[in-house]
Amino acid sequence: METRSRPIALNIIKTDFPNDDMERKDFVELDLGKEGSSYGSDPDALEEDFTGETKFHYKDFGSIDWYRELAVDQRKRARDKEKAEKTPNIVNYIRSLADAASGWIIVTVIGLLAGFAAGVIDIATKWLSDLKSGYCRGHLYLNQEQCCWSDTLHGIDEDNCTAWRDYGNPNTYGGHVLLFIMYCLMGTLFATIAVILVKMIAPYACGSGIPEVKTILSGFIMKGYLGFGTLLVKTLTMPLAVSAGLMLGKEGPLVHVACCCGHAVSQFFPKYRNNQAKLREMLSASAAAGVSVAFGAPIGGVLFSLEEVSYYFPLKTLWRSFFCALIAAFSLRAMNPFGNQHLVLFYVEYDKPYHLFELFPFIILGILGGLYGILFINMNLSWCRFRKRSILGQHPLLEVVILALGTSILAYPNPYTRIQSGHLIRLLFKECKRYDDNPLCDYNYSQNATTVFNDGITQATWQLILALVVKSALTVITFGIKVPAGLFIPSMVTGAITGRLIGILTQKIIEAFPTLSIWEGVCADPTSCIEPGLYSMVGAAAALGGVTRMTVSLVVIMFEVTGGLQYIVPFMVATMASKWIGDAFGKDGIYDGHITLNEYPYLDVKIDMQQQKTTAGQIMNPKGGTMVTIPFQGSTTEKLCTMLADHPFSGFPIVTVQGRLVAFITREDLQEGIAAGRKLMTLDPNDAHIDQTVLFTMSTPLVSAGRVPIRLNNVIDYSPVTISEQTSIALVLEVFRKLGCRQVFVLRQGELVGLITKKDLLQFIYETRNNDQTSYTQFK
Amino acid sequence: METRSRPIALNIIKTDFPNDDMERKDFVELDLGKEGSSYGSDPDALEEDFTGETKFHYKDFGSIDWYRELAVDQRKRARDKEKAEKTPNIVNYIRSLADAASGWIIVTVIGLLAGFAAGVIDIATKWLSDLKSGYCRGHLYLNQEQCCWSDTLHGIDEDNCTAWRDYGNPNTYGGHVLLFIMYCLMGTLFATIAVILVKMIAPYACGSGIPEVKTILSGFIMKGYLGFGTLLVKTLTMPLAVSAGLMLGKEGPLVHVACCCGHAVSQFFPKYRNNQAKLREMLSASAAAGVSVAFGAPIGGVLFSLEEVSYYFPLKTLWRSFFCALIAAFSLRAMNPFGNQHLVLFYVEYDKPYHLFELFPFIILGILGGLYGILFINMNLSWCRFRKRSILGQHPLLEVVILALGTSILAYPNPYTRIQSGHLIRLLFKECKRYDDNPLCDYNYSQNATTVFNDGITQATWQLILALVVKSALTVITFGIKVPAGLFIPSMVTGAITGRLIGILTQKIIEAFPTLSIWEGVCADPTSCIEPGLYSMVGAAAALGGVTRMTVSLVVIMFEVTGGLQYIVPFMVATMASKWIGDAFGKDGIYDGHITLNEYPYLDVKIDMQQQKTTAGQIMNPKGGTMVTIPFQGSTTEKLCTMLADHPFSGFPIVTVQGRLVAFITREDLQEGIAAGRKLMTLDPNDAHIDQTVLFTMSTPLVSAGRVPIRLNNVIDYSPVTISEQTSIALVLEVFRKLGCRQVFVLRQGELVGLITKKDLLQFIYETRNNDQTSYTQFK
Repeated sequence: METRSRPIALNIIKTDFPNDDMERKDFVELDLGKEGSSYGSDPDALEEDFTGETKFHYKDFGSIDWYRELAVDQRKRARDKEKAEKTPNIVNYIRSLADAASGWIIVTVIGLLAGFAAGVIDIATKWLSDLKSGYCRGHLYLNQEQCCWSDTLHGIDEDNCTAWRDYGNPNTYGGHVLLFIMYCLMGTLFATIAVILVKMIAPYACGSGIPEVKTILSGFIMKGYLGFGTLLVKTLTMPLAVSAGLMLGKEGPLVHVACCCGHAVSQFFPKYRNNQAKLREMLSASAAAGVSVAFGAPIGGVLFSLEEVSYYFPLKTLWRSFFCALIAAFSLRAMNPFGNQHLVLFYVEYDKPYHLFELFPFIILGILGGLYGILFINMNLSWCRFRKRSILGQHPLLEVVILALGTSILAYPNPYTRIQSGHLIRLLFKECKRYDDNPLCDYNYSQNATTVFNDGITQATWQLILALVVKSALTVITFGIKVPAGLFIPSMVTGAITGRLIGILTQKIIEAFPTLSIWEGVCADPTSCIEPGLYSMVGAAAALGGVTRMTVSLVVIMFEVTGGLQYIVPFMVATMASKWIGDAFGKDGIYDGHITLNEYPYLDVKIDMQQQKTTAGQIMNPKGGTMVTIPFQGSTTEKLCTMLADHPFSGFPIVTVQGRLVAFITREDLQEGIAAGRKLMTLDPNDAHIDQTVLFTMSTPLVSAGRVPIRLNNVIDYSPVTISEQTSIALVLEVFRKLGCRQVFVLRQGELVGLITKKDLLQFIYETRNNDQTSYTQFK
Repeated sequence: METRSRPIALNIIKTDFPNDDMERKDFVELDLGKEGSSYGSDPDALEEDFTGETKFHYKDFGSIDWYRELAVDQRKRARDKEKAEKTPNIVNYIRSLADAASGWIIVTVIGLLAGFAAGVIDIATKWLSDLKSGYCRGHLYLNQEQCCWSDTLHGIDEDNCTAWRDYGNPNTYGGHVLLFIMYCLMGTLFATIAVILVKMIAPYACGSGIPEVKTILSGFIMKGYLGFGTLLVKTLTMPLAVSAGLMLGKEGPLVHVACCCGHAVSQFFPKYRNNQAKLREMLSASAAAGVSVAFGAPIGGVLFSLEEVSYYFPLKTLWRSFFCALIAAFSLRAMNPFGNQHLVLFYVEYDKPYHLFELFPFIILGILGGLYGILFINMNLSWCRFRKRSILGQHPLLEVVILALGTSILAYPNPYTRIQSGHLIRLLFKECKRYDDNPLCDYNYSQNATTVFNDGITQATWQLILALVVKSALTVITFGIKVPAGLFIPSMVTGAITGRLIGILTQKIIEAFPTLSIWEGVCADPTSCIEPGLYSMVGAAAALGGVTRMTVSLVVIMFEVTGGLQYIVPFMVATMASKWIGDAFGKDGIYDGHITLNEYPYLDVKIDMQQQKTTAGQIMNPKGGTMVTIPFQGSTTEKLCTMLADHPFSGFPIVTVQGRLVAFITREDLQEGIAAGRKLMTLDPNDAHIDQTVLFTMSTPLVSAGRVPIRLNNVIDYSPVTISEQTSIALVLEVFRKLGCRQVFVLRQGELVGLITKKDLLQFIYETRNNDQTSYTQFK
């Protein structure tokens, strides 16, 4: 987006017509041409000029015009082809090949970078987390594993690694207190550093970034959101935020980081830099790479990008995204310093078949997940609204410090809240083996025991319930703070705990009623028949589904993450139940909720406009009065400058004397056209009082003023999108969504009567959904 | 599509206006209302009438208008909602719930049916194939396995199953000849029955069906193509065709069969029966189910439907398709009588890692696959063109009989052509173990052997080369005959053989140059280092990719089919190479090739219109002269009937006196409106000479003729899609693709100057692509 910051040069060409048509020589033609090319009077200039790239002038927080962007890209490619055909030599062939390959080169580099960034974050997180309990003597930069590993090389026993020093001895009371204090202090310190970095350098680096990425991909301009500063700060602060022990994940923000990588790489290729529509193709691929590295799920990543994030997703992009996601996953695996097969994040070893009756608890898990989703979304949005109004909004640093300290104090006593969320999920997904020292697996396998549940499992159950309450509550107030914060892992943790609890409950029920017909015969004893780890996975899918309302991508991610192809039906059942409950009793997923909260101009593809009676004529502008138009037969700089000063509109229709629409000119093109024309005439561009004729057609004007007129026929858009006044709102929405235009003109029996911009439509949608006339004003 | 066959009743309502506006009482209003409702003069009739469903009148081989279909569905839902809000009781709630659930019910039933159909085909194919070599004494309906299985129950050894009788003893010369004769005879018989059934009952049941399904999904009407007869005949003849030994597969046609199921099920739900756009959502899900049962690949099926088949694929459909595909896969597995885990079709047990240098042979396989694809497509299309012109086209029965007999004779001697293609693929994908009796694995593992390749493998290699040549050649002339015939398995066979050969070649190279630096160190001996089965899988993916030009869906299908998640990179590399070669040196995939060959009106989403200079004005109709229009202020039945008789157009614009577009009316609506109006006036509907005024507006006409006028304002479309004359062809294509309209009107400065139909655009595309003005005339 930084490309917009420097002023854009206009090519001004004196058109040289044959001598028998001398009159035309006096006009000046304007075209948005190549940057930096000289203002020539060369006869070939017009031809040369057409080969330049049209630049779009978007303001920050503006919407792009997909329809026009596409048109420009098509024109450019046609020109390139024509040019190549004119001089068919090897250089041109290579150039066209390079042009075709550039997309692939970009996605390869994006994949490598995204994998690298994820690797850096992984390593840093591990190191910082370990630093909360101790340090490596002499090698502060090593984490516990690496420290002991290098220690082992010198022949010392791994279990009694001497190089690693805990802050205190957990077996003594004093040591324990010391450990607790260090845990809280380090956590708060990390969080503080993170929030300061974000606040000072890149305010856009906070949060999950997915709502914003969705909005950007739908055609919104947010300068700097995908900038290099954001990339750097987000990559650095994510490990800090995660290892601070805050209830947040690094998976969602990785999508944002990958998109930053994508944006950075695309800046080196003019084809993608200068075309916002093409750029978004690359960003879609980046989003896929982000999920791919976050979960080691390349297919799930592509489906996530398709289902959840992307807006415009041609088939070519699908294939490239897949490639990008795969490269990213493998580059992460290649650099992974821990040696574990990161491609399967929470790999489960078991493939015990589930029983048909188990679908019932899975559906219950789905319903619970859906309800949790609704509850979480509503509470989180309420909290975010409260934050905006309260003192917390003004003092993000204070909020984060209090939250980090509070979280540390609350989390330390319970082993299930103390350990990192990722490790907890892995623990919960695991199956129980005999003689397992995991308290969750403290079953009594002897024949003559009265119950299979020993004390260890009972205690663990209570600890899990406590952890569930603490983690859920903290997640609600954590998502939205000014540090990078994802929701995937916290949601999965909540679901996984619930799932494990429901699994143990099912075991207890089976133990209590062993002869019930639905499981008698298939279920000899509860421990061999019910696998609580599977319930945990299903619960995680359900909760994540409830919060994000993902469907296909969620099921695919879950099966890629766990490697459990045989559990695809439980995942599906739970996701479906969760989604239905969510849709029936709640509104949007969390990302759409935050989009609405932040009033981003996102035209949701899932909106159903059932307002039959509203037509285009009712929401168009101007509501009454006449439209501000420019006469096609010509105007003067004075009139146009007055018009520009009087009306803030981003573009103006050009109409005939009968009021019929001919073309459209954007505000920026008009302003720059006039300024450039004046500059060429060596007039002061700011002096609006020196009048000059402005023409929009190639035909000779009827009245030729004293001064040389400015001709703008090359910068106007001759094919604006038009609809009839009686078009229903549903079809208007369809036109905006599908064609991606920024505005459509409304005709009444062929006559221009108004226009609808994307923002008018969004305003209408917000109003009808919220019955709240005051909402959605920020981007008006 | 059969719903169109009976005539559609029009509701004619005398509008009752207040008495102070007596004049209006004399008009008759027309609306496309509920079928069979009485023509009432009830004051509430107008209201009641609006709740009916608008029916679309499509001719066979016509295109649907997605844009209008969508509008009608939206209107209907809005009405339902409004109605429900008026009387909010439990019945309405249940009704709306049932309406929402109907989509899910349909996909569930489709999934079950598709699984069932696939199961029937599987069982029948197995039985018929076995019947070529022998029969089960006393139980002719059992296949060899079942026959011997029931035999074993009586305590007889499985290997010496006495109930199953071969036609001859393969150990004697006479028996061998007898077996050969029976093989040829039975094969020819099966093929003959299949072609007769297809020809007599359902001619649409032939071929793979994927090109037609693609075209139908893009909005084309082909009555009966998805009918019940086609479903029945295709399900019955597919096992015959496959077991006849012809070089064809049953996987592609399963997509067609599943779509027939989808169409049949949708007929029970008016919401889907009466709306072609909604129907197509279900067909997309069916296509996913088809691939899912064909390969046991639910995710691959959804991606196939998305990437290859579907045209309009909203996110809701994605999730439903996934559900449908999963139900289908599990219903097939539930009914599978062979007990093998059909969910993974060609399950491979090995997960030996591949070496980095092996990517080089994989790329070569990809290139070979791409070249094979080009060669196959060109030769097959040439052969199909030749068939159309030659005697073969008139005598499909003769062609099939000759082909079946010839195939049998050619295939029998070589064990690799004799066995079913599916079994061959399984054999080729398998890894080699020590002391394997598979001749392909006849390696010498002893330390002091001069070569690891024994005679068995050398012989098998030559047999494979022969099989490759025979199978490829036969596939070229088989695809397109008048029996159900798929391409997936034949393409995969070709690729798998090539892959296995390249794998063995790589082993030989390594044996010859064991010290080459790229594999020295990682590769101790060729047999332990190179797995020819993996090469076979990669080759299959490459060849299938070359022929169909699938990408993501292919990789996902391959990994689902083989269960080899670890081989996703080799699949990807080969698919990519194959796709690039194919795109660089060839034109379309085989399905698009057949769409072009058959001149189906398919608007390919992949077409790139780089003709910068062509604009809407250049391809619109009428090229010269004036447009046939209807005046908005009114017309007479006589004039309209004359116009209908003179011009074959499928619709007419309604314009003001200044020539500005107001609305659009389809030919059928106009015809039926006039007929219904006359009927109400008790006039002979066929008598064009009794004149009556026809009005299109609610406002009082200036001139009121003697007779009661017909008012058509409810059947006309007030929001036709319009574009400017200067719109580039690329944008016109975009409008057609994205909005799915059947025609757009072209305006010059707000004035109607012409229109472009989908067929005009297709004509233009065909012309520019083929530089052949005579092509594409069939559907003109």
